Amino acid sequence: MNKKLWGGRFNSSQDERFWKFQSSIDYDKELAEYDVKGSIAHVKMLSKCKIIPYKPAQSILKGLAKILESIKKGVFKIDKKAEDIHSAVYIALKEKIGSAADYMHTARSRNDQVALDMKMYAKDKVLLLMELIAGLQSALVSLAKKNVDIIIPGLTHIQHAMPVLLSHQILAYVEMLERDKARLKDAGQRCDEMPLGACALAGTSFTIDRRYTAKLLRFSRISQNSIDAVSDRDFVLDIAYAISVFFMHLSRFCEDMVLFSTAEFGILDIPEAFCTGSSIMPQKKNPDALELLRASTAESYANLYSVMVMMKGLPLAYNRDMQLDKKALFDSVKKAEDALIITAELVKGITLNKGYALDRLESDESLFALDMADYLVKKGLAFKDAHDMVGKIVVHCLNKGIKISSMPINELKQISKKFDKDIYSVFNAKKSVIAKRSMGSTNPILVRQQIDRWVKRLSN
Amino acid sequence: MNKKLWGGRFNSSQDERFWKFQSSIDYDKELAEYDVKGSIAHVKMLSKCKIIPYKPAQSILKGLAKILESIKKGVFKIDKKAEDIHSAVYIALKEKIGSAADYMHTARSRNDQVALDMKMYAKDKVLLLMELIAGLQSALVSLAKKNVDIIIPGLTHIQHAMPVLLSHQILAYVEMLERDKARLKDAGQRCDEMPLGACALAGTSFTIDRRYTAKLLRFSRISQNSIDAVSDRDFVLDIAYAISVFFMHLSRFCEDMVLFSTAEFGILDIPEAFCTGSSIMPQKKNPDALELLRASTAESYANLYSVMVMMKGLPLAYNRDMQLDKKALFDSVKKAEDALIITAELVKGITLNKGYALDRLESDESLFALDMADYLVKKGLAFKDAHDMVGKIVVHCLNKGIKISSMPINELKQISKKFDKDIYSVFNAKKSVIAKRSMGSTNPILVRQQIDRWVKRLSN
Amino acid sequence: MNKKLWGGRFNSSQDERFWKFQSSIDYDKELAEYDVKGSIAHVKMLSKCKIIPYKPAQSILKGLAKILESIKKGVFKIDKKAEDIHSAVYIALKEKIGSAADYMHTARSRNDQVALDMKMYAKDKVLLLMELIAGLQSALVSLAKKNVDIIIPGLTHIQHAMPVLLSHQILAYVEMLERDKARLKDAGQRCDEMPLGACALAGTSFTIDRRYTAKLLRFSRISQNSIDAVSDRDFVLDIAYAISVFFMHLSRFCEDMVLFSTAEFGILDIPEAFCTGSSIMPQKKNPDALELLRASTAESYANLYSVMVMMKGLPLAYNRDMQLDKKALFDSVKKAEDALIITAELVKGITLNKGYALDRLESDESLFALDMADYLVKKGLAFKDAHDMVGKIVVHCLNKGIKISSMPINELKQISKKFDKDIYSVFNAKKSVIAKRSMGSTNPILVRQQIDRWVKRLSN
Amino acid sequence: MNKKLWGGRFNSSQDERFWKFQSSIDYDKELAEYDVKGSIAHVKMLSKCKIIPYKPAQSILKGLAKILESIKKGVFKIDKKAEDIHSAVYIALKEKIGSAADYMHTARSRNDQVALDMKMYAKDKVLLLMELIAGLQSALVSLAKKNVDIIIPGLTHIQHAMPVLLSHQILAYVEMLERDKARLKDAGQRCDEMPLGACALAGTSFTIDRRYTAKLLRFSRISQNSIDAVSDRDFVLDIAYAISVFFMHLSRFCEDMVLFSTAEFGILDIPEAFCTGSSIMPQKKNPDALELLRASTAESYANLYSVMVMMKGLPLAYNRDMQLDKKALFDSVKKAEDALIITAELVKGITLNKGYALDRLESDESLFALDMADYLVKKGLAFKDAHDMVGKIVVHCLNKGIKISSMPINELKQISKKFDKDIYSVFNAKKSVIAKRSMGSTNPILVRQQIDRWVKRLSN
Repeated sequence: MNKKLWGGRFNSSQDERFWKFQSSIDYDKELAEYDVKGSIAHVKMLSKCKIIPYKPAQSILKGLAKILESIKKGVFKIDKKAEDIHSAVYIALKEKIGSAADYMHTARSRNDQVALDMKMYAKDKVLLLMELIAGLQSALVSLAKKNVDIIIPGLTHIQHAMPVLLSHQILAYVEMLERDKARLKDAGQRCDEMPLGACALAGTSFTIDRRYTAKLLRFSRISQNSIDAVSDRDFVLDIAYAISVFFMHLSRFCEDMVLFSTAEFGILDIPEAFCTGSSIMPQKKNPDALELLRASTAESYANLYSVMVMMKGLPLAYNRDMQLDKKALFDSVKKAEDALIITAELVKGITLNKGYALDRLESDESLFALDMADYLVKKGLAFKDAHDMVGKIVVHCLNKGIKISSMPINELKQISKKFDKDIYSVFNAKKSVIAKRSMGSTNPILVRQQIDRWVKRLSN
Repeated sequence: MNKKLWGGRFNSSQDERFWKFQSSIDYDKELAEYDVKGSIAHVKMLSKCKIIPYKPAQSILKGLAKILESIKKGVFKIDKKAEDIHSAVYIALKEKIGSAADYMHTARSRNDQVALDMKMYAKDKVLLLMELIAGLQSALVSLAKKNVDIIIPGLTHIQHAMPVLLSHQILAYVEMLERDKARLKDAGQRCDEMPLGACALAGTSFTIDRRYTAKLLRFSRISQNSIDAVSDRDFVLDIAYAISVFFMHLSRFCEDMVLFSTAEFGILDIPEAFCTGSSIMPQKKNPDALELLRASTAESYANLYSVMVMMKGLPLAYNRDMQLDKKALFDSVKKAEDALIITAELVKGITLNKGYALDRLESDESLFALDMADYLVKKGLAFKDAHDMVGKIVVHCLNKGIKISSMPINELKQISKKFDKDIYSVFNAKKSVIAKRSMGSTNPILVRQQIDRWVKRLSN
Repeated sequence: MNKKLWGGRFNSSQDERFWKFQSSIDYDKELAEYDVKGSIAHVKMLSKCKIIPYKPAQSILKGLAKILESIKKGVFKIDKKAEDIHSAVYIALKEKIGSAADYMHTARSRNDQVALDMKMYAKDKVLLLMELIAGLQSALVSLAKKNVDIIIPGLTHIQHAMPVLLSHQILAYVEMLERDKARLKDAGQRCDEMPLGACALAGTSFTIDRRYTAKLLRFSRISQNSIDAVSDRDFVLDIAYAISVFFMHLSRFCEDMVLFSTAEFGILDIPEAFCTGSSIMPQKKNPDALELLRASTAESYANLYSVMVMMKGLPLAYNRDMQLDKKALFDSVKKAEDALIITAELVKGITLNKGYALDRLESDESLFALDMADYLVKKGLAFKDAHDMVGKIVVHCLNKGIKISSMPINELKQISKKFDKDIYSVFNAKKSVIAKRSMGSTNPILVRQQIDRWVKRLSN
Repeated sequence: MNKKLWGGRFNSSQDERFWKFQSSIDYDKELAEYDVKGSIAHVKMLSKCKIIPYKPAQSILKGLAKILESIKKGVFKIDKKAEDIHSAVYIALKEKIGSAADYMHTARSRNDQVALDMKMYAKDKVLLLMELIAGLQSALVSLAKKNVDIIIPGLTHIQHAMPVLLSHQILAYVEMLERDKARLKDAGQRCDEMPLGACALAGTSFTIDRRYTAKLLRFSRISQNSIDAVSDRDFVLDIAYAISVFFMHLSRFCEDMVLFSTAEFGILDIPEAFCTGSSIMPQKKNPDALELLRASTAESYANLYSVMVMMKGLPLAYNRDMQLDKKALFDSVKKAEDALIITAELVKGITLNKGYALDRLESDESLFALDMADYLVKKGLAFKDAHDMVGKIVVHCLNKGIKISSMPINELKQISKKFDKDIYSVFNAKKSVIAKRSMGSTNPILVRQQIDRWVKRLSN
């Protein structure tokens, strides 16, 4: 039996090392289920349109049903001689039902077949990832809810800026993840287009019913141009890109958590179950999970990059280069799945260092410099003037090595007459966050409302 | 006059080379218009909410209106001491209206201001690029329409596959560009979120009306989390990514055109106005425009990559690293604008080589191998068997150095009894494309319908 | 038995999915041999320096020797609980020799141990790749030698430029590969630095003899700074970069071969053993090997990129992110090995299309435009003037649709009096290449000399 | 006057927007000096070989000398019609000396000319960058020398590992930079190959003396293959790569400095001259220089990436795509120059926080866990056992919230009898670093020796 889907034209067989090099079977088994489902729909359509006889069609459908079952059970065995998943399914089918199998590949080519398999895979994975993202969001919202009132030094440039609620910062990651879901959703909609029937590149002379196949496979649309249908890998890029941005967000979360769990920041603790130790330093509890997730960002970028570079300048229509899109996409999807599950679990175990007391935070009075400036503005100063004055006070205290609150009121009045005794109540973290009024700000009431909004939204 | 928006706290001035290195003024003048419009809306809101007094507010609004006018006229002069566009506008305003200008920067920070400017820029450019893409699509559709019946060897692996209409292939690029528009549209909608009011990172203690500002600036939504609002650069990535994919598509078009215009392929001619010559070889007419556009793909990738790498692992909230997003985005947008206009013009000038006669194409009879196989299938053979048989015929003729059509019918019958004399009519390019029936195929009637569909769609 | 090299400090065990996610054992088995050899040298040194007792040292050395043997035989079994190759070797050793194994990890850490393993691996692979490159060079030189006099249209911008020897072009690839070897050699020398003894990051309090270890392991130098020694991954980048440039060169070779083997160019044939067919088009013989090798370029870039992005902004010293360097490097090395072997075999099977006759080439007389210009220069014209005149002749003939050689001498003389009847002998490809005189040019005698030079050089 | 170096063959002129798009004159003015010097050498050679007449040769040389002078003075004016630097020089020359200028372009093409210019540029810049790196190294060594005995918590995973000298860590950056110099040096040597004479791609029929030109321009070798000579851009990649790795190192330095200058770490202060403030928070002194330098890493990667992607799959020989190598290389070189100068100045202004007292460091006794384990090993325990025991002590103290040093000796003895009262002297940072003995370790004597080695080495 000629196990290739081609071969009649060849005098000699393939170089062994090349054969191994070109085989995609190691990774495209991910597509097995989709390949079979796609063939089932295709054969149903061929039969309905009377393009292939009834009997072999029925025989193929029975055979494919059994193969699908064995795939779902995880017992499907791939023939080692198969060069790709399409051949593997064909070989298995032929072994089951004999020569009737030879009718299956009518009015299609591997070019449109692989496009179909990939789009089915893509649509499925988009949904899965969106669900997992929602799971991580829920874990973050819970963490925020449990610790809603904890105040930390808000950072810009990793330098103390002004007091913020830790819960407010945690919700920032939730916002990022929401965009990640939206990006995946958009990608999913753009790729919801059934390519089968494009055949090699020009369409087919059989009177197939592409809309019927699309309906069976739950695609909303059919592709409108056969050359584009077999040449397009935009949907691979879109998903790989969406995953890359998700990982970028995750890397920022990881960076923050690694920082907050240092001895120096001491804001929170990473659960031991997501740390490892050192072979030489007995005391170490290293945040390895966070570091590896951060590093995976580089790998997700590399996958996107790999497909972008591969596609650049490829003439129409199909070129074999395009095979490499699979490995990259599958790897990114797998990494994102793992990362989302692991991070959600990790977040559940984070413990806040309640001992990270307000007094430590309040000991850095420069955190209240903006509050001082706003104080002056509310008494009628232009903001720029208020800003300059407070700047001078800060540098004065820094140079003298004293606290701002230790400056007597008359000295403050020398800088601005607007200062009054109530200025001393400014150096208070709780007051500072409560004072914020704008929508989306770190004000505890508003943050609670945001938490409620998310809880509601994520429970739908 | 202290020309910095800060400085009160500093004892010493900045290192000169660092000052130049850190200045973004060279490229962020792109934002001038948006910065002023954003400030106008901000000040209107501050005034409405009575956060700043009426008189300075009016004074600021008048001053900004004049500055906006000078920007639109292209005569706005940027103070060389300004470190960024926000400072430049402030300096210009202060020169015009004096100390009233110092009220403008109330209840905002450069962190949210730059996010606003960038989003306004992004929304504008998304629309512009979508329009330019439609222009290129129209040029391609016209080219297809003018040459609707020209048949070329359809290629896979740059090897002869089967006859296709050149117009069909041209419409494949139109499909790609349609996805590019969709990608930009999605990006535009995701970034339609007004960030002002986030201030440095925590929001503000002034009772501002963010929805009002959003309305004035025609944003659909306001951002919900102040820390995220100043830390987010997803919209930069989304647009840079959409542009990268557009360039990837363009690079494939360029590759095809370069190939088709070689002496060897001889399918079409690139207009001289988009070629250059050689300083040494007098005969040369090189397709430089196409090559440079293809190469620009690498630059658009690099811009995307640069921002992705820059953002990786950045802790919340704002970090100065993020400044570099501007240069990359502006460059990608500019390149895409140029590329779209240039390519549309180039397409208008492409001339098909009518002399690329059918006889040349038909001299390679292997182009009709699939037609032969389909012939057998329609007579009842399983496709796999038909494929194998035709493969053998092809290799037989190749080895003998003869044409397939020169094989006598009895020899063909030895391979399959299904062959009859009508098989010889298969070796005909026109018949081959007309024989295609499936939706989206290269059948001339269907391609004409596609052209009509596009003409209609693009004229809306 | 605690199978971790740490753990005393931990209350709870690791999350299962995280544990799997963080394990590098799947890919770092590549290091098994180096890890054992490194440990042998380390223990010999510890014993020599009397840091560990004689008996356990001997016991360890015997155990490691057996493990090394089983690795070489391919029968070494890795404990599934092992988190990395260092743990796997330790577990295997402990099972063989019991508690004496616990002495092995004195005065080192996994941080310096993995740096050592990786550098040993790197040094080995650099040599292997250099050898394989030489093999590919030899195959190319043979191909050039066999076909030394075949003339093809030399291309710039894929447009006809002037006649060149195909052998000359093939030697261009050999030059590229020579630089690839040089790049690898430089990388190998830069990484020839023994890091062991840096321990976690600070060095050790044991009086170890690092030079002795280096000598045993054939390193030229020892690292001079323990923090750098465990933080440095430059050598990974250097090799990944050298491989990327090699793949870039290979992609250009592939592009040329794909082009030259099209029906349109028809210059050469790719051996069937490196092609595959189509599941739908029986005639197809696609150059899949070349396409996949070209696409692998993108993957090699992605590997380099991944490590570069991962390393950016990592604080000193070791961070877990750095683990991901291995996967990327191993993949690039493996791909380069495969690519080199496959390409060398493919090159051996390339057959030149002897039928690609000179007459086809000479039918495009514009290939001789420079020869015409040089003709005029040699008769005293300034080059710029000669260039302009020939340009006009070319465009005149193009517009009239006539051959240059069909222009009567008096018409030519109207353009330049310098033209004489001997100008007609210019339109001859052999003469054109023979006319070249400069070193490194396409002159057949000089190309033969180059072939001889390479044969000699590669046989050393 | 036809200002193009070609044009005779063209009927129509170029599209205006394309002409602007394709012009490289904005950035390739960097090459002006090299272009003129290259032409001077070329014309001297042509004259020596009697390929062009004596008089025009002399005239050209005089004209070029004047142009060179005006370039050096910064007053050379580039004709706006010039499409590239070669044309600009030709136009300027023709304006100066008339038609004699038309002899200059004999026996060369812009293809080899630009390769020459770029290699001359590359060789120069390699030397400059090496010098600037040495300058930064000197600044770092000085900083280390001034603060040689300051002890900080050595970090892995940004978690406390064990005490190290800050000077030791600073020397780690010096090591990295040393490799950067080596990488540049290797790149410089590989590109020291004179390409002129390759002409368009095939060499020339004039009997030029390439070795003479090489000698005049101080190249060690001439290129051996004309097709390779005009197709090769490896040297651009090599330098862009070397700069990328330098920036990666710099980004790690920046990350450390940003971290060490936070309120939380408080180890050192960044000089104000390299910081900027906030437009809203008067107290801020943000480490902007360090952040921007860190971000520039992404840009240097992008430049490398851009050229790598552009070169992938380009057929031989020259293609216009290759023009884009210049912009990327020039930008990387310029950024590296700036970064090196700025960082060296910044380093000079770093002030150590002498107040970062040992007591703060010693309050985290887990830093001495390895010292405790080594203590046990020196008393005869196997390292693995010692490690496990100390691990248990650490977790015991952590759970109880007590200091290790507060555990009474009898409790310690319950864990290991080897413990004796001298164990309490272990919790001492100075002792810990002094205890290190291995070469390259953080031992103060060894670090001083390293400083001396560097001072000596850098003063040569």
